[in-house]
Amino acid sequence: MADMADTTDATGTSPGWLSAGDLEIARAQMPILYVDAVPVRVDDSGEVTAVGLLLRIGPDGTVSRTLVSGRVLYHERVRDALLRHLEKDLGPVALPKVPPSLQPFTIAEYFPTPGVTPFHDPRQHAVSLAYVVPVTGDCRPRQDALDLVWLTPQEAASGSVQSEMPGGQGVLLRQALAHVGCLP
Amino acid sequence: MADMADTTDATGTSPGWLSAGDLEIARAQMPILYVDAVPVRVDDSGEVTAVGLLLRIGPDGTVSRTLVSGRVLYHERVRDALLRHLEKDLGPVALPKVPPSLQPFTIAEYFPTPGVTPFHDPRQHAVSLAYVVPVTGDCRPRQDALDLVWLTPQEAASGSVQSEMPGGQGVLLRQALAHVGCLP
Amino acid sequence: MADMADTTDATGTSPGWLSAGDLEIARAQMPILYVDAVPVRVDDSGEVTAVGLLLRIGPDGTVSRTLVSGRVLYHERVRDALLRHLEKDLGPVALPKVPPSLQPFTIAEYFPTPGVTPFHDPRQHAVSLAYVVPVTGDCRPRQDALDLVWLTPQEAASGSVQSEMPGGQGVLLRQALAHVGCLP
Amino acid sequence: MADMADTTDATGTSPGWLSAGDLEIARAQMPILYVDAVPVRVDDSGEVTAVGLLLRIGPDGTVSRTLVSGRVLYHERVRDALLRHLEKDLGPVALPKVPPSLQPFTIAEYFPTPGVTPFHDPRQHAVSLAYVVPVTGDCRPRQDALDLVWLTPQEAASGSVQSEMPGGQGVLLRQALAHVGCLP
Repeated sequence: MADMADTTDATGTSPGWLSAGDLEIARAQMPILYVDAVPVRVDDSGEVTAVGLLLRIGPDGTVSRTLVSGRVLYHERVRDALLRHLEKDLGPVALPKVPPSLQPFTIAEYFPTPGVTPFHDPRQHAVSLAYVVPVTGDCRPRQDALDLVWLTPQEAASGSVQSEMPGGQGVLLRQALAHVGCLP
Repeated sequence: MADMADTTDATGTSPGWLSAGDLEIARAQMPILYVDAVPVRVDDSGEVTAVGLLLRIGPDGTVSRTLVSGRVLYHERVRDALLRHLEKDLGPVALPKVPPSLQPFTIAEYFPTPGVTPFHDPRQHAVSLAYVVPVTGDCRPRQDALDLVWLTPQEAASGSVQSEMPGGQGVLLRQALAHVGCLP
Repeated sequence: MADMADTTDATGTSPGWLSAGDLEIARAQMPILYVDAVPVRVDDSGEVTAVGLLLRIGPDGTVSRTLVSGRVLYHERVRDALLRHLEKDLGPVALPKVPPSLQPFTIAEYFPTPGVTPFHDPRQHAVSLAYVVPVTGDCRPRQDALDLVWLTPQEAASGSVQSEMPGGQGVLLRQALAHVGCLP
Repeated sequence: MADMADTTDATGTSPGWLSAGDLEIARAQMPILYVDAVPVRVDDSGEVTAVGLLLRIGPDGTVSRTLVSGRVLYHERVRDALLRHLEKDLGPVALPKVPPSLQPFTIAEYFPTPGVTPFHDPRQHAVSLAYVVPVTGDCRPRQDALDLVWLTPQEAASGSVQSEMPGGQGVLLRQALAHVGCLP
């Protein structure tokens, strides 16, 4: 799950949003709703030709590859949360095409305890709605993400890439590839 | 959304669960994760033959028909939340068959403000994962639900039944009927 | 199901395609694979704002509203069949966005015998993979379709429109609207 | 794709079914509609605990592992085709639970030309609707299948098992495992 965005989300300045302190309390007591988006390039027939992964530096300095991910805020539609996180991570001209149906391809349950599911988040119990989102524009990641790299589906499913994806996001990425018929 | 169950859920006696007061605070500040289940009877080929609706008395005394619905608790899997709410509302021998995939047929976004989506919950912003769940056993609703009534898909989609379903659950029921190919 | 296109499809001039006579024989003996596409306009968040329906004159002179529909040919990918029928019915600059996943929102089984399913095609047993397809370009229906009309989801689900959709396509359209969360 | 069943399917004795000769002609001229079923055991919460694979001897004597697979016949519902092939391959008391929705988890396109998609069938262009089907009863494969073996999801996804699955069915199996959240 993307970490750094949360301090941006939870400024505490907007009414109805959580302060950093309140977020900590909530995280210890209830599941937090997230969205995960797998940005893809598609050809004219809709077939996926490339998958976009963010190269991030985590709080402990480790380099990791992540999907676009973040919380759904109070009184925010899932569609708007997807757009907000995609814009935050891919820039304002990525032109993401959020699908017309909100049916996710799967639900990823990130538990604070490892091993309950393939997904793990030491900070919280997060439940994430996962979508594949074609982007057609120019992607310019913001400064907190080092880079955005486009990989072929084959590269994205490789062991070396998978090993750089924390918290089980490599599993989620392969579920996305399976859903779009590109699991090598 | 099912109301009365929440006081049962949030006893405050289990570590990591919300007290009633904390739940109120959280409800004002972040989306709450729910599950909605549409209990169905199916024939040998899997085709839906009947839909189960709960007849409830709401806080204000009005009679309403509802789906099986409730919160996902901290450190609870979505599957276990579904089972818990199905058992709570249908009794211990309903034998619900939770589907092997967690892909919901849709996401229902209940906003405290009417009109943002078809779904409305004055208490909170709830985001619900919606599933169709075949039940094969004997259903014995607990005392807080007046009755469980099995309707044909045609009856369930009728205007009179729809008008008795609060918060947009009539829309969700018709989405479920559409998903299983039984929208009349 | 779209009728008139079939004589165009089955010219018999391409190797591996069926002649009109062979198609008649096959239609009497095995299910024919179709695709159905519901063309939609979406806003920036992906939400459906309008549904495109074709106004057609049937073989018997009756006016009817239909979805984009047609056969999948031998050695043709489902994606390419979708693109071909969308281009045939909406013109070359409609810019349809076929979804990255081939998972259809439903399967429509058109039986020659009425009443087996909600779908009926007197000519054949057709099994259709049904998709919602956003189109972003300019739609210019070919001459064999009278017109393309964009309706709001509410208008599309209305009784008057439903009554003009033959073979159960009104049911399929409402299933599509349910899938995208726009069933009124 | 399951081969040997077709001579059983196509006896030519039932009106509307294809004779073996007609089937050959149709196979050269149009896509043939199939269903693929992944039989699974699930626990009380619906989570997949085991996957059933058939051990078959192919026409050329090679041993292979396959899913339950076969044609949809003229005037046969997809549900009934699933039940027929499951009973044929797993025996009459397997008690398969065909899902209430016909939405498949994916579409597998088997082309006679290798490389168009991950799926290949030298005999024909087959398009298959793929489902995960829990079975709760006793499975007794018929004589033409050597054996039915239950594997854990981890075993089923292993390279050795995958290499024994012809025509791309290993890919389809992993897509099924991804769909049910059991892709290791």
